[in-house]
Amino acid sequence: MSASSAPMVYVNGDYLPADQAKISIFDRGFLFADGVYEVTAVLKRCLIDYAPHIERLKRSLRELDMAMPCSDDELERIHRQLIEMNDMDEGTIYLQVTRGDEGCRNFPFPEDAKPSLVLFTQPVNLSEDPKADTGVFLASMPDIRWARRDIKSVALLAQVLAKQEAKARGAHEAVMLQDGFVTEGGSSALGFVKADGSIVLRPFSNTILPSITRQAVTKLADQSGVAIEERLFTLDEMMAAQEVFTASATSLVTAVVKIDEQRIGGGQPGPVVRKLRALYFEMAEQQIHEQADAWS
Amino acid sequence: MSASSAPMVYVNGDYLPADQAKISIFDRGFLFADGVYEVTAVLKRCLIDYAPHIERLKRSLRELDMAMPCSDDELERIHRQLIEMNDMDEGTIYLQVTRGDEGCRNFPFPEDAKPSLVLFTQPVNLSEDPKADTGVFLASMPDIRWARRDIKSVALLAQVLAKQEAKARGAHEAVMLQDGFVTEGGSSALGFVKADGSIVLRPFSNTILPSITRQAVTKLADQSGVAIEERLFTLDEMMAAQEVFTASATSLVTAVVKIDEQRIGGGQPGPVVRKLRALYFEMAEQQIHEQADAWS
Repeated sequence: MSASSAPMVYVNGDYLPADQAKISIFDRGFLFADGVYEVTAVLKRCLIDYAPHIERLKRSLRELDMAMPCSDDELERIHRQLIEMNDMDEGTIYLQVTRGDEGCRNFPFPEDAKPSLVLFTQPVNLSEDPKADTGVFLASMPDIRWARRDIKSVALLAQVLAKQEAKARGAHEAVMLQDGFVTEGGSSALGFVKADGSIVLRPFSNTILPSITRQAVTKLADQSGVAIEERLFTLDEMMAAQEVFTASATSLVTAVVKIDEQRIGGGQPGPVVRKLRALYFEMAEQQIHEQADAWS
Repeated sequence: MSASSAPMVYVNGDYLPADQAKISIFDRGFLFADGVYEVTAVLKRCLIDYAPHIERLKRSLRELDMAMPCSDDELERIHRQLIEMNDMDEGTIYLQVTRGDEGCRNFPFPEDAKPSLVLFTQPVNLSEDPKADTGVFLASMPDIRWARRDIKSVALLAQVLAKQEAKARGAHEAVMLQDGFVTEGGSSALGFVKADGSIVLRPFSNTILPSITRQAVTKLADQSGVAIEERLFTLDEMMAAQEVFTASATSLVTAVVKIDEQRIGGGQPGPVVRKLRALYFEMAEQQIHEQADAWS
């Protein structure tokens, strides 16, 4: 642990106390939102679903013609170093790569700027999250985002406004709508359970982010015999479902018990979502054991 | 002038050499693109159309429920101080306000974060811009931005990609298209001159930025008896026009002489755009005299 009371963060090669961690005002992340990010869950000091997060990071970078800021090994080392330095048992690690800084402001890509890399930890109670027991509320609103939502970019102002509006309306998360169909939450994927027990999800496309947690949950559902149906669906259909859920690295799998003024499934987390959450933690335990083995 | 060779910039109360100007990695401008900006032209050390830029800044802030970071007087003082410190006769001043930094990352607005304020100068040859004589090229592409383009936010990744694509296609600027109609450029307003000499512009709405330079040009055109027609228009119509132009604080009024592979108006800046550019500099001279009077 650092002598400072602030947690340690990583900025372009240096480990610094969070309150001293700074970036140039000419960094394109600050001026243009020209960067991408990932958030990886940490349980028992282990990275959960780390490989697919890094795969998605690389895809986001490719789509924006940006380079990886360092080797895969180095990136994983930084993640693990921050867990150690901050003695973090449970929470998330945030990672941001930007196109860097050429000391001035010009829209086109710079010829030779070095990408910036920033990582920090956030303690989050994932395994004993009280919201998993109570469920969460959603507030519906139009999806006003751009056309490349498959890229996990830091151009998040629309999501900030959505999550602020949800909060102002007493909800935990937004449910965003486009052309009459649900897209996703402000910072989570959304799905629901039909009366026949199958799960309905919007197909991946440029209109939503390829959620890592949703993909993990889908796989777990599939393995336990739950049918998955990928198609567009309306808010009305989701509101009529017995169970609705969010999926993200920060909330894992969490039941939705209210959308706007409508209670879902009697206002309590239902059995399918509870089961999926339990399966997620089983999968995480498996990864934790594998990582322990890899280190020993 | 500073002893450093780097130009001086302003960051949250301090004047610093540009290469030492930093902002917290937790600033919401860096993490969420949760901020807005303005770019004001400087001619003969004077701010051009400063008042409408600050009016638009205040509108952007209001739309995002953000506070002005300082008084109007203080903000103008910082602008003038940077002109003095950097001995800048001609160029632009960039101003960015973000929702600030609460030392962690949470989507909803923080309860008590102080807005961040950053300003810097960029030398630009506005009065002797060679592109004004040669004209510029546009490359057409879909407009993939979000639904609140009337807010001058720093969530500019779509514009970065548009301007990069334009550059890669040998053009200076993008012409973006939505639902079959032209919206605007990557960082400029667009208009064209009809055969009868009148000017056609897209009406202001959430689909484009309320361009200050376009508004100045519209007023000058109107005063000189040129009719203004505000309506949606297609790329084909613009490509068939005798004269096309861009308007922005960085390019002022500049003729477009090629769109994709199509030459416009014989490939030379035409008389109406040349006239509007001349009128713009006359207006600027008037403002320069008024500012000189105000200071004496």
